[in-house]
Amino acid sequence: MNAGETLESYLGGAWVRGQGVETELVNPSNGDVLTSASAKGLDLQSALAHARDKGGRALRALSYAERAKLLGAVADVLAANRARYEETAIANSGNTKIDAAIDIDGGIGTLKYYARLAAPLGEARALIDEKPVRLAKAENFQAIHMLVPRHGVAVHINAFNFPSWGLWEKAACTLLAGMPMLAKPASATCLLSQQMVRDVIAAKVLPEGALSLLCGGIGDLLDHVIADDVIAFTGSSATANRIVANPNVLARGARVNVEADSINAALLAPGVAAATPAFDAFIKEVAREMTVKAGQKCTAIRRVFVPAQQANAVTDALAARLAKTTVGDPRDEKTRMGPLVNRAQQAAALAGIARLAREAQFVTGSPQAPRLDGIDGEKSAFVAPTLLKAGDGAGSALHDTEVFGPCATLIPYQNEAEAFALVARGGGSLVASVYGEDRDFLARAVTELGALHGRVLAVEPSIADAHTGHGIVMPQCHHGGPGRAGNGAELGGLYGLRFYHQRVAVQGSTELLGTLQATAAALK
Amino acid sequence: MNAGETLESYLGGAWVRGQGVETELVNPSNGDVLTSASAKGLDLQSALAHARDKGGRALRALSYAERAKLLGAVADVLAANRARYEETAIANSGNTKIDAAIDIDGGIGTLKYYARLAAPLGEARALIDEKPVRLAKAENFQAIHMLVPRHGVAVHINAFNFPSWGLWEKAACTLLAGMPMLAKPASATCLLSQQMVRDVIAAKVLPEGALSLLCGGIGDLLDHVIADDVIAFTGSSATANRIVANPNVLARGARVNVEADSINAALLAPGVAAATPAFDAFIKEVAREMTVKAGQKCTAIRRVFVPAQQANAVTDALAARLAKTTVGDPRDEKTRMGPLVNRAQQAAALAGIARLAREAQFVTGSPQAPRLDGIDGEKSAFVAPTLLKAGDGAGSALHDTEVFGPCATLIPYQNEAEAFALVARGGGSLVASVYGEDRDFLARAVTELGALHGRVLAVEPSIADAHTGHGIVMPQCHHGGPGRAGNGAELGGLYGLRFYHQRVAVQGSTELLGTLQATAAALK
Repeated sequence: MNAGETLESYLGGAWVRGQGVETELVNPSNGDVLTSASAKGLDLQSALAHARDKGGRALRALSYAERAKLLGAVADVLAANRARYEETAIANSGNTKIDAAIDIDGGIGTLKYYARLAAPLGEARALIDEKPVRLAKAENFQAIHMLVPRHGVAVHINAFNFPSWGLWEKAACTLLAGMPMLAKPASATCLLSQQMVRDVIAAKVLPEGALSLLCGGIGDLLDHVIADDVIAFTGSSATANRIVANPNVLARGARVNVEADSINAALLAPGVAAATPAFDAFIKEVAREMTVKAGQKCTAIRRVFVPAQQANAVTDALAARLAKTTVGDPRDEKTRMGPLVNRAQQAAALAGIARLAREAQFVTGSPQAPRLDGIDGEKSAFVAPTLLKAGDGAGSALHDTEVFGPCATLIPYQNEAEAFALVARGGGSLVASVYGEDRDFLARAVTELGALHGRVLAVEPSIADAHTGHGIVMPQCHHGGPGRAGNGAELGGLYGLRFYHQRVAVQGSTELLGTLQATAAALK
Repeated sequence: MNAGETLESYLGGAWVRGQGVETELVNPSNGDVLTSASAKGLDLQSALAHARDKGGRALRALSYAERAKLLGAVADVLAANRARYEETAIANSGNTKIDAAIDIDGGIGTLKYYARLAAPLGEARALIDEKPVRLAKAENFQAIHMLVPRHGVAVHINAFNFPSWGLWEKAACTLLAGMPMLAKPASATCLLSQQMVRDVIAAKVLPEGALSLLCGGIGDLLDHVIADDVIAFTGSSATANRIVANPNVLARGARVNVEADSINAALLAPGVAAATPAFDAFIKEVAREMTVKAGQKCTAIRRVFVPAQQANAVTDALAARLAKTTVGDPRDEKTRMGPLVNRAQQAAALAGIARLAREAQFVTGSPQAPRLDGIDGEKSAFVAPTLLKAGDGAGSALHDTEVFGPCATLIPYQNEAEAFALVARGGGSLVASVYGEDRDFLARAVTELGALHGRVLAVEPSIADAHTGHGIVMPQCHHGGPGRAGNGAELGGLYGLRFYHQRVAVQGSTELLGTLQATAAALK
């Protein structure tokens, strides 16, 4: 890696370099500059046109099964280079090996999942949704609902915390749907995305134009999207709102999918005694969610709701677990949690912690960066595992403030109704998890909390060791939440392909509809 | 009707009157003032809270089958009062009896359709989408996708052209989903909406809070929506963009569905000879679409694509049909087409026609209002049936300008590829219709045009007399289009309920999921 050269972007079928330096990519454990990114001066309008004209045509000419094979080939290229990616994730993202695996293997696994899932769609080039419906007395006039690939380009604007998974989870559904993509990873960690795309392009496993990559600022990209295009965004609400309200995006009606801030909840059911299996599963999951990837997951647990009677027991158990989390440089084998991704994120997280601390008391952590042996506090981006406990009369900051780091707030509740009402104050989240033995309570929680969540994980003792976790996004399941989480819908098996297709009602003769059905695949 | 009193709104469980006059409702055939509307000074925040707390709780306590019965009861109330509604539609909307039937019977029919469709959902209070999926090695940990009713209120912002259908097509899916609604019809024609809601409220067929009505300006309504709420809008792109970009709507992440401008296309297939059944079906449908409701349908045909060889034959046939369309006061039995809804719409339509005329020649009509016997041209809002024909080198106005009146532009094309490319210049539309005998061409047209349309109607001779029409929105079919049409999704059978539910992935033990499935209905 030459820190003196700006990372190239892959646009219009060539590797191109922006002018100057927009962002320096650093090692957040020690402040070393790894490389830099800039997209200044790059012709983004032509890049979009190239993707649409070249990539779109090539992909739409393939069947779903052929596109599924492309995903498998991409996954193989990535798997072959995994060791190099892990090094980059540790250096540029401050990841531990476990953190890096979630990002890297999560991306590869999602590609492989979709390759398997879509293979049975066979030679089809469109999908059929639901059965034909009668519209009039005449039996030979009916309607079907088809999903046809959109003719534009999918613009992916990804978050810094998943330079691999964020890239490939969107790529899987996009390419499978027959749309080309232009990915713009967050500059802070785009090195890993760039290495991966470079390997995939070099391996020539995708048709030219199917995959473009923009390393650097977004520039005037959104001024050039058209009605055929879609935008899939993951990141902060503030940025999401700027995208949604962009005048050209509004004027063209480009479709936008948003995954944004989320103050996710974990809820211990009423009546669960300390040191029971449900209690232990709850403690284990909350501590894990707080510390994995140093809490930098959009799905991480931020609010921890416990029956008031159990507040002390939960506090003690969590504090004991967090005390065992060794924080440090992830290259050190003893390290269990690394730094945040950079000092700007560290500053934002510490400011958020200070805001929470107006309404809550520290159990662990503080509003300052921790002092760590052998770490330069002026150059690194560490935040200690920070657990707060809400005081009486806590206000709205606990429900409104997303600290994007290893921090959660414990909030006692008096009864079931209050618990559900408090969770709802998050204003819509990606995921809530509930822990208990009473299955009737769990069922009520699913229905009540489901109205404001994209996913609910219900943990009872029988699955305490089997479940896939509060924060892990499984490609089989809907990913996205209502309200402040942005109303997005990603993944969820073949459902995730919908965003990249146009759903169209086709009204015609039964003979014509039969012809169309014969060359399309049923969606389920 | 007392023209001196402002129409009341039904908010917070009571009929309330705004201050002063925001909008006068007129008879567009003669300028008579019928009544007025104002929502000034009304407490919209409390109205939303009342709907959520009272209406939402009551509706969610009912099963789908019980809610289906409510829709049936509403339809019965409306059917019993139909004659009065027709009078209002003729007076306030300038409707002919056929126009009025599309609006009034369309609304009643949609309610009845959904009442029948949802009855089999039975005692369920949530829906299950797709089959359970495995997530891990353990068989007892799986996921299902549920749709649970959202806890907020559905704000409906409707267009002036369908004061009945627009109200009830949205009401059907909303109430069935267990959400209360607050409808804000366009002020210009809200008299019919108000009469209908007044009858339904008086009949006490809905739980209190389920149905609220705002007659008058929208005021600060959007400043009070929350994450639980949804907004369903039909109208202009300009207004849609203001709603989508409203700071509170963005901050809360209230979900928005938009049906907006659409420059819909009709396409005569290559090689169709004049005076054949496909040709005649095409001419009949284009002329009908131009004149029904004086062209004031979001689905109406605006662009008419014909093979260059047939341009003259189509021009002559359409001109002959349009010449037979008697324009006048709809109270006159000879009248086949009435006025636009008011003089502001007339002025906008004539301005749009003038814009088109820079790129096209008049076949029928002109940029001025027609002179009609016994009609005061200074007080009425008539526009003559106006057909234009694109000249060589026509620019983008033909593809960008939605004249919301009885106006369409004929655009010759040279070959199939050019035809599809020209249609796509509309930038996304609600509907396209294609007419021909060559089924292979029709199939290609569906796939190509489908990418930028919400619905494609393919007419071949065998269904020339059986099809339901280019512009008629059938509740069985998806309604909404991509791009400039707003990316909305309404109706389409039970699919239309999705917007008013939250789709949530539920991960848990197979026993818990079984419990949830037992009390929910499968979506198909």
